[in-house]
Amino acid sequence: MTTNYTLAMEELKSLLRDRLDTSTSVRTHHSQDESFHQAALPNAVAFPKSTSEVSEIVRVCMRHHMPIIPFGTGTAMEGGINAYSGGLCIDMSLMNKVLRVSAEDMDCTVQAGVTRKQLNEYLRDQGMFFPVDPGADASIGGMAATRASGTNAVRYGTMREAVLALTVVMPDGRIVKTSSRARKSAAGYDLTRLYVGSEGTLGVICEITLRLHAIPQAISAAICDFELLAGAVDTVIQTIQMGVPIARIELLDSVAIDAVNHYSQTHYPLRPHLFMEFHGTEAGVAEQADIVRELATENGGSDFKWAINTEDRNALWQARHDLAYAARAMRPDARIFSTDVCVPISRLTDCILETHKDISGVGMAMPLVGHVGDGNFHVVPAVNPNDPIEMAQIEAFHQRLIRRALSMGGTCTGEHGIGVGKKQFLEEELPAGVEVMKLIKTALDPDNLMNPGKVL
Amino acid sequence: MTTNYTLAMEELKSLLRDRLDTSTSVRTHHSQDESFHQAALPNAVAFPKSTSEVSEIVRVCMRHHMPIIPFGTGTAMEGGINAYSGGLCIDMSLMNKVLRVSAEDMDCTVQAGVTRKQLNEYLRDQGMFFPVDPGADASIGGMAATRASGTNAVRYGTMREAVLALTVVMPDGRIVKTSSRARKSAAGYDLTRLYVGSEGTLGVICEITLRLHAIPQAISAAICDFELLAGAVDTVIQTIQMGVPIARIELLDSVAIDAVNHYSQTHYPLRPHLFMEFHGTEAGVAEQADIVRELATENGGSDFKWAINTEDRNALWQARHDLAYAARAMRPDARIFSTDVCVPISRLTDCILETHKDISGVGMAMPLVGHVGDGNFHVVPAVNPNDPIEMAQIEAFHQRLIRRALSMGGTCTGEHGIGVGKKQFLEEELPAGVEVMKLIKTALDPDNLMNPGKVL
Repeated sequence: MTTNYTLAMEELKSLLRDRLDTSTSVRTHHSQDESFHQAALPNAVAFPKSTSEVSEIVRVCMRHHMPIIPFGTGTAMEGGINAYSGGLCIDMSLMNKVLRVSAEDMDCTVQAGVTRKQLNEYLRDQGMFFPVDPGADASIGGMAATRASGTNAVRYGTMREAVLALTVVMPDGRIVKTSSRARKSAAGYDLTRLYVGSEGTLGVICEITLRLHAIPQAISAAICDFELLAGAVDTVIQTIQMGVPIARIELLDSVAIDAVNHYSQTHYPLRPHLFMEFHGTEAGVAEQADIVRELATENGGSDFKWAINTEDRNALWQARHDLAYAARAMRPDARIFSTDVCVPISRLTDCILETHKDISGVGMAMPLVGHVGDGNFHVVPAVNPNDPIEMAQIEAFHQRLIRRALSMGGTCTGEHGIGVGKKQFLEEELPAGVEVMKLIKTALDPDNLMNPGKVL
Repeated sequence: MTTNYTLAMEELKSLLRDRLDTSTSVRTHHSQDESFHQAALPNAVAFPKSTSEVSEIVRVCMRHHMPIIPFGTGTAMEGGINAYSGGLCIDMSLMNKVLRVSAEDMDCTVQAGVTRKQLNEYLRDQGMFFPVDPGADASIGGMAATRASGTNAVRYGTMREAVLALTVVMPDGRIVKTSSRARKSAAGYDLTRLYVGSEGTLGVICEITLRLHAIPQAISAAICDFELLAGAVDTVIQTIQMGVPIARIELLDSVAIDAVNHYSQTHYPLRPHLFMEFHGTEAGVAEQADIVRELATENGGSDFKWAINTEDRNALWQARHDLAYAARAMRPDARIFSTDVCVPISRLTDCILETHKDISGVGMAMPLVGHVGDGNFHVVPAVNPNDPIEMAQIEAFHQRLIRRALSMGGTCTGEHGIGVGKKQFLEEELPAGVEVMKLIKTALDPDNLMNPGKVL
């Protein structure tokens, strides 16, 4: 952190001119994501406009051993963009063009800085949408880098399934296309999937070819509340096990509902809720909803309240997407400590009920929400990172939660990634796998300059 | 090939006893897949019974610099198991146990030697099935290694989507679990997808955790013939573009139909056909079929002929799956030269019609069949590998076909893999990507002993 990389900075300055920023305000803005992880300023922030410019930037940094941190919107949860080793932050926000859309192939190619909402705005007229929706309006590049998902994953998959091909700048500056845009291919190692989830540690994702989906003929959203959390979770499990192609099925416990009511001015009863959405033909949607309603009733659920028109549905899902902000608003000056386990669905009820018991023991209000159709849920405490006693307590809770999930065949992170926050847990989850990952990292980035200290 | 690996063989013999075979007949059986690629005998064939035994075998081979070739059922198409560098063939057929099935999670874990039909037999009572279905009754390990797919991929995906986790023996003998069995995870690099499609060049896949699917409430299959090939292809494209969740939609041109009629004793009219299958609820299946029937009619298709009961459907799909054998049966003593391009669906009609014109120019009967819902099709000539003039002619045709697909944004292989047959085309398709693949290969297998000479 003491290095000032004088030569590198001179070369970058002559390359980028006013698109290289060393002001404290801009560096501070790029020092921390939305989590509690400690901020750390990069030496400078670059704003490239093209893939070839990213390549040139990377070559300069490599020549001068300056670390590189790719940056999307800074909305992640595991400290992945915090510059603990200093270096150059590459902010992709000026690379925000939709390069190509094919309605016939239902795919598109975008630059990494395009955000998910921007893309959906762009696509709307063409009857297609891009389903992957983390809470924030994240960039497609950042979503690919963290293997993000969201509320639609139960039906449409995660970034793992959504990305057809990437253009990546390698740590040595080479520009690499990872795949053709054919729907399937058996052409060599799956470089696309290797880079999806690599969190900037293997190169800079510059362009992404994405699979799109037709906007369904009929969409309807419903909410249903339950007396008992177990009733809500069991409804989810039975829905999935019956093979109902539900598009969204989200759990919010009563603490989460309380947070949402305050933040989004809603008036849901303070009970566990399912927020659901059905996609299909008119008949298909009705058929799906009938099955789920019957399951919910058997599990003690209320009548469904429907949100049929677009405006009501958008309000419903915006409230759900804003949960992290709602949780943070529960305490002034707090930061979010978002957990992110995912377990096989057969263990979901056990895992959630044991976690709820654990939360009671900790004695702090922590919302629990989840993309439960995938077995993924978040406990989202708002913490004061400067209170060591509280942090120790939450960290111990987090450790118990992850070990519970691992013991049930689950993972320490369903969709947020490893960053700096889960390196220890990745080693617990895949002890031999981490050794293989390190071999790959060393082969592709021998000087460890691509987002050093993250993931591994 | 002149090395006899005396010390390695002694150690392997004491480890495996009669499960190490050096007889010419067994080595010959393991010298060649189902393609035209020249046979090459391994020095010996091992038949391990457990993952830890595979690990011991690999350690012995590494110590003595003996190449290793993993072997499933030998039914692949690109010479991936032919032992051009000699060495030890590891035949996984004794590792044929279904280790675990969870109906609640709709997943299972199998040893690599379990075949797809064996697995589906095992699952049938539990109301689930495994959808990936290459023509042959291949092993799950081999299917994972080649990133196989088949007729159901348009709805259920390929091995890329079907595999949740792997247990792999690395080139240094370490046993590595690549992932938890959670439905989704952002835990580090996607080692699972790296090994799916690695064709035995990065290690030996020993156990596979697979995603399963509920047997649909209703299934019906239909066939429809067309006067013009273009009408059939356009029907497919429009079906996909309308988002109909069709389970199977297979194209057979009239030459393919002729081959099927002879081999499977069927009596289809000698015209281009679509073989289709619809999965869903009773109402959903009817709705899907109505849409496709309307599209087919507009494109000059015949009335649908239905296969509703299980026996008729099985006969229909067995005839389709046997196409490679049917093509081979067109000429005595012939071998199969199966091509395997896949293009974005918007270019499928162009690609198929230009290819048909090219076939006419070559003047040889070549069946054309395809998983056209994915943009993937095969031209399957039966060749005489000992006729250099004919082989040169077919190889030139193959090169034109692949360059046509690449120029349309497609891939040289949709599902067969690279093996030895497509190395040159992989370099054309992903010139920079191949360099990255080589870095990974060298990092994980520095002595180049895992299936050397394949893929890269």
